Amino acid sequence: MTEHLVVIGGDAAGMSAASQARRRRSAEELRITAFERTGFTSYSACGIPYWVGGQVAERDELIARTPEQHRANGIDLRTGTEVVEIDRVGRRVRSRELATGAEEWTSYDRLVIATGAEPIRPALPGFDAPGVHGVQDLGEGGALLDSLRTGPQSAVVVGGGYIGVEMAEAMALRGLSVTLLSRSAEPMPTLDPELGRLVRLGMEKLGITVVAGAAAEEVLLGADGRPRAVRSTEGEHPADLVVLGLGVRPRTELARAAGFALGEHGGLLTDETMRVVGTEEVWAGGDCVEVLNLVSGTHQYVALGTHANKHGLVAGTTIGGGRAAFPGVVGTAITKVFDLEIARTGLNEREAAAAGLQVTSAVIESTAIAGYYPGAALMTVKMLAETGTGRLLGAQIVGGAGAGKRIDIAAVALTARMTVGQLISLDLAYAPPFSPVWDPILVAARKVAGKVGQGPA
Amino acid sequence: MTEHLVVIGGDAAGMSAASQARRRRSAEELRITAFERTGFTSYSACGIPYWVGGQVAERDELIARTPEQHRANGIDLRTGTEVVEIDRVGRRVRSRELATGAEEWTSYDRLVIATGAEPIRPALPGFDAPGVHGVQDLGEGGALLDSLRTGPQSAVVVGGGYIGVEMAEAMALRGLSVTLLSRSAEPMPTLDPELGRLVRLGMEKLGITVVAGAAAEEVLLGADGRPRAVRSTEGEHPADLVVLGLGVRPRTELARAAGFALGEHGGLLTDETMRVVGTEEVWAGGDCVEVLNLVSGTHQYVALGTHANKHGLVAGTTIGGGRAAFPGVVGTAITKVFDLEIARTGLNEREAAAAGLQVTSAVIESTAIAGYYPGAALMTVKMLAETGTGRLLGAQIVGGAGAGKRIDIAAVALTARMTVGQLISLDLAYAPPFSPVWDPILVAARKVAGKVGQGPA
Repeated sequence: MTEHLVVIGGDAAGMSAASQARRRRSAEELRITAFERTGFTSYSACGIPYWVGGQVAERDELIARTPEQHRANGIDLRTGTEVVEIDRVGRRVRSRELATGAEEWTSYDRLVIATGAEPIRPALPGFDAPGVHGVQDLGEGGALLDSLRTGPQSAVVVGGGYIGVEMAEAMALRGLSVTLLSRSAEPMPTLDPELGRLVRLGMEKLGITVVAGAAAEEVLLGADGRPRAVRSTEGEHPADLVVLGLGVRPRTELARAAGFALGEHGGLLTDETMRVVGTEEVWAGGDCVEVLNLVSGTHQYVALGTHANKHGLVAGTTIGGGRAAFPGVVGTAITKVFDLEIARTGLNEREAAAAGLQVTSAVIESTAIAGYYPGAALMTVKMLAETGTGRLLGAQIVGGAGAGKRIDIAAVALTARMTVGQLISLDLAYAPPFSPVWDPILVAARKVAGKVGQGPA
Repeated sequence: MTEHLVVIGGDAAGMSAASQARRRRSAEELRITAFERTGFTSYSACGIPYWVGGQVAERDELIARTPEQHRANGIDLRTGTEVVEIDRVGRRVRSRELATGAEEWTSYDRLVIATGAEPIRPALPGFDAPGVHGVQDLGEGGALLDSLRTGPQSAVVVGGGYIGVEMAEAMALRGLSVTLLSRSAEPMPTLDPELGRLVRLGMEKLGITVVAGAAAEEVLLGADGRPRAVRSTEGEHPADLVVLGLGVRPRTELARAAGFALGEHGGLLTDETMRVVGTEEVWAGGDCVEVLNLVSGTHQYVALGTHANKHGLVAGTTIGGGRAAFPGVVGTAITKVFDLEIARTGLNEREAAAAGLQVTSAVIESTAIAGYYPGAALMTVKMLAETGTGRLLGAQIVGGAGAGKRIDIAAVALTARMTVGQLISLDLAYAPPFSPVWDPILVAARKVAGKVGQGPA
């Protein structure tokens, strides 16, 4: 008997699941139908800031696999079609073709929910005006590029997190005078403030105005109905263009309405195989689920394409009859503003305190490669360990070329639950063009280890 | 009572041990005397190729700490003074001031042997002529720079390992026509041949002539007594200058004569605290010791400044009354030729076979960053796992900018004895300017995991 797999959402998680299931089971064994609201599939949302900034010339470069490629792969993909209801008892979904409004019910044996995220848009005056842009999907990216063609001189980016910082770079690359409004005391609140401060100083050096501790209150509109300024708790900031970088939340209204349990961050909850808890036949993945943080032991919400792809792989493998697990995340993230690289993993001070952990930390400065080698950039590393045990809890990096990707060392060490003493002994790649003789991560580990009374181990 | 610590060798391991012991114990508790043959201390031997190549302008940039700085730190440092005998029973060393020939005995309570390595120089005709250069220490580096000032047009580099490859780059940067003679079928024999081949192709593209499978037999001299060519099993190769890149061996004649047990590679053997096995009062570290390979479980010889510094830290901490351990290495190494980055960790096919391990491997090609982001360089990853268990055994990387340092991910995973299935789930830093959505290391892990029948775990 042919089973029917229905996938809701045609981006990373959904189409990875579909493709992986297809790889493992033939069309006779498994029929696959996928619904996607937009006209696009499997694209890199993380790449949108670089398309808007001009480093990536064409929208289609961001598309990893087109609808046609998925169809050629034996997936019945319905683009421009939104699923508007899940009937759990009847094991069917109601979909609506957006162009015609035509609706139909489709039965499933297995279901993947990959509805993604929706950008946070403040319900404040002026925020729905033309010239106020989100950058969550390719459509929004295209609209912002259209706005840029109207010749704006200034932009206000609302939000000091990853998207905000990346969009500030993009607007500066487009020649605009840029103001970044950060609600927290320093931008990049997933870093501790002393590292966030380095990001602010770096951005200011690049000519970006950073207004910290500023909550946006209104987009002030000109006679043409487009932005002329943003008013915040800190004053008025001129803006021909407003970019929203307030982050996203899980798009789970559909799942909620169908009666699926959601976590405290509003995302779907799954087991290690990405099966939705309390179900036998429903999987979920990507930006609409919560994930286990392996360091804190609690669930968190983190919207990242790299996780979405893994979720899809695991769900598709399981649906295809194989064994696979997504054990969780350690909270790794990276970005940059021009040449300033910014990365973090594990828990920051605030998150560690929330998890009831006592923290000992250290901050070190180093060069990313041997100090005598040409082009050696400075970098700062903050490392956090559990007081008493010396277990690594987190790391944060701000620095020049070669700094950021070093966070992976700490990410793997966190996964393996190493102590900072064990970190000191890691056999990391050393040669002068690549690292000082003591890698900056090891320098930080030595300093924290000293504070918790631990030697190399 | 004041104890007396004697250190033989004033480079990384010796002076790290001395400095760390000094930090932990006052001059009243511990007197420290260090003997160094040359006039230099604590310098980066790994930086010599870049000084010779001209990327580093001044010799002294390679010196991390001068003799004066060590003396100001309360260490009685005797430069230009060689230890010529260790009297284990009498707990004393006999030293000779090289300038005067004056000898004296110095008693010790604790001894650190950090005599380093000596370059392998073939006992073949012509190899002791002027114009044939090693690059093991600052003196040899200076002599080679002097030779370059005589206006040579061509250089033959003998040896296709790390030093050979780095010196080929240095000679090419100096404008010479360069031939690299590699005894193995492909250069970089610590890589498997299919990756070594990529190194050869990369070097050839840069205009370096690579002669593989070539054993040097003679340096042919001109009328001036300087090289005119090198004769190998593969023919005659024009050479106004010859650079030896045949690697090094532990400088342990002194230790051998004193009756210390040496390992099968000729290095001193120590426990985890870097104490020489069978002794209570003698430590050793750096290029004169063998180290445990944590992947194979056997001892190996690997001369690297990064290990030497750790050995010194551990020995000095232990001597200073603290707890510290150097558990071993996983065999990580990195180098480059111009923009081609080369890295490896763990065991290669040959080493795994020697350790009695059955290997499943995969080779993948990827971009180092998102393919659509400007400047995305290609990279190749080979990954090896144990057949059956899927335990990661090793990884090798050859590629462009950003490729090499990724080897650290595999190095940490090896230390934690992860399986390739576990690797797939690693939470590595992702953003388009830093990585494709699947990091190349994860792509390789997926491919090997598939072959050993393992899913993400």
